[in-house]
Amino acid sequence: MKKLINDPEHVVTEALEGMALAHGDLLRVHHDPDYIVRADAPVEGKVAILSGGGSGHEPMHGGFVGHGMLDGACPGAVFTSPTPDQVQAATEAIDGGAGVLHIVKNYTGDVANFEMAAELAEDANVRSVVINDDVAVEDSLYTAGRRGVGGTVLAEKICGAAAERGDDLDAVADLCERVNANVRSMGMALTSCTVPHAGEPTFELGDDEMEIGIGIHGEPGRQRMSLEPADQITGRLLTPIVEDLPFSEGDRMLLFVNGMGGTPLIELYIVYRAAVTLLRDRGITVERHLVGDWITSLEMAGMSLTLLKLDDEMIELWDAPVHTAAMRKGM
Amino acid sequence: MKKLINDPEHVVTEALEGMALAHGDLLRVHHDPDYIVRADAPVEGKVAILSGGGSGHEPMHGGFVGHGMLDGACPGAVFTSPTPDQVQAATEAIDGGAGVLHIVKNYTGDVANFEMAAELAEDANVRSVVINDDVAVEDSLYTAGRRGVGGTVLAEKICGAAAERGDDLDAVADLCERVNANVRSMGMALTSCTVPHAGEPTFELGDDEMEIGIGIHGEPGRQRMSLEPADQITGRLLTPIVEDLPFSEGDRMLLFVNGMGGTPLIELYIVYRAAVTLLRDRGITVERHLVGDWITSLEMAGMSLTLLKLDDEMIELWDAPVHTAAMRKGM
Repeated sequence: MKKLINDPEHVVTEALEGMALAHGDLLRVHHDPDYIVRADAPVEGKVAILSGGGSGHEPMHGGFVGHGMLDGACPGAVFTSPTPDQVQAATEAIDGGAGVLHIVKNYTGDVANFEMAAELAEDANVRSVVINDDVAVEDSLYTAGRRGVGGTVLAEKICGAAAERGDDLDAVADLCERVNANVRSMGMALTSCTVPHAGEPTFELGDDEMEIGIGIHGEPGRQRMSLEPADQITGRLLTPIVEDLPFSEGDRMLLFVNGMGGTPLIELYIVYRAAVTLLRDRGITVERHLVGDWITSLEMAGMSLTLLKLDDEMIELWDAPVHTAAMRKGM
Repeated sequence: MKKLINDPEHVVTEALEGMALAHGDLLRVHHDPDYIVRADAPVEGKVAILSGGGSGHEPMHGGFVGHGMLDGACPGAVFTSPTPDQVQAATEAIDGGAGVLHIVKNYTGDVANFEMAAELAEDANVRSVVINDDVAVEDSLYTAGRRGVGGTVLAEKICGAAAERGDDLDAVADLCERVNANVRSMGMALTSCTVPHAGEPTFELGDDEMEIGIGIHGEPGRQRMSLEPADQITGRLLTPIVEDLPFSEGDRMLLFVNGMGGTPLIELYIVYRAAVTLLRDRGITVERHLVGDWITSLEMAGMSLTLLKLDDEMIELWDAPVHTAAMRKGM
């Protein structure tokens, strides 16, 4: 295992310390239990948004804490759900009296622990939205129902902007449900990743193989097959995504091409080009985009595509100012 | 070779097409010869800044084209210098009558081709600054003298802000020389990368080996040795950097922890933590930072450290608004 770490036991703690040293103007890090909150938390009278999940998907979620996005993030161990006490403590730390929205990716442990935390945080008014945008598989390892993947990043940006402008808890949570209802994703891998604790690759792929429909923890996808040109791979992901909602002619879209961690940016732009071309052939217009490493799987090589069907309100909120470690615009 | 590409011959062209599709509000892409200019180029009366070099280091340089940074970028083939005609055409396309600054990384081909282009672009008033911040080696493969690496990113941001506020060509070029005189870098690799045309890894490293002082094209560094904990590796890079300028107690610093492309962000924050701690022990304060993949070597796993000794003007220019595909703040 080749990693820039000191000890697998200390990976998350030391990375959090690094984040606190780098981004003290934006966020504060609490240890034992571990969570990150925005520097000015709790923001009185504003709906607070909390997300979290296993570490190893950076910049998600800690990189999204700040003005216009998340109020808090709970990082579990690598690829491991945060504990209920982490989520409870973070919920209480960010509650500014207007309620707390939990944005939870659909993995069994995450859902259970956020649910328990919501009960434990008795004084906070909590609503939860579970993101389940991955069309690749229905039930899978760690998940009943579809997995939550790239749609989470978009939901956190859009709902963060709604909370920042003063929407109440029900409005922000309903918006989050609307984003989830209109977003679909699918990923693929060229290589595995290695969880520091495990010390060995999560799975093995042959020199000329790829996995279509991969999960962000290396969970099996739809099929393992021979490597193909980028344009064809893009079509293999895009077609089931488009046909699932379905997205259709005239729809305005946010197209999100996400790198899994070990894929050069130059390749993501090749995929972006292919995806825009395929969508144009279907009469679908890409109105907004996101290209880069936003929800990763450590050093996995591969990518995922996410499509969100936009409406005017979502576009306005997507364009709204944000200032976090990983995403910034308008401020 | 596992890559999300269609054909090694088309990697750069297709990625440029993807960039044009994604960032039409920020930049325009010209093909044959290939170059990128900001959408509003030429900006009348503003000093224009051009950079470029081999592709494969994304987001550098194309991701830095826009308000407050570069007016143009010339991407060569992967790890190959742009041709004189590319550089000439881009120089002419961005010249707004106030002169053009070429920011050139110190590689023999880059230096020669930018120099020839400056002569060919007869009507443009061109000054060139060569960045040579890599302390790892003196002459090396492709280079007479020190290589230009991470300092280039910082020079482009700072000089871009100076040009944007209206400084004249000599002022912007002199500032660029000052940044270069005060910046030092060194990198290391855990793995090689694979150039699409070559189809095979540029070099081989054993399962427990790393290369200290690696170049951004996989050029040999100072030594190949057994893998160590991140804190020790950080010290191995930081000590020669600090002692080279030398940086000393009381200095105010910009600390740049750069991922080579295949390194998870969580690891870069572990390195950042280590570097801040080591600098504090020397009485050196980190006033500004940059953490992430900014000057990469395709999918290479590894990182580089860059230290820039700041003065008040550099801080003001570092903090100034910028809006490019890869770097954005204040707008």
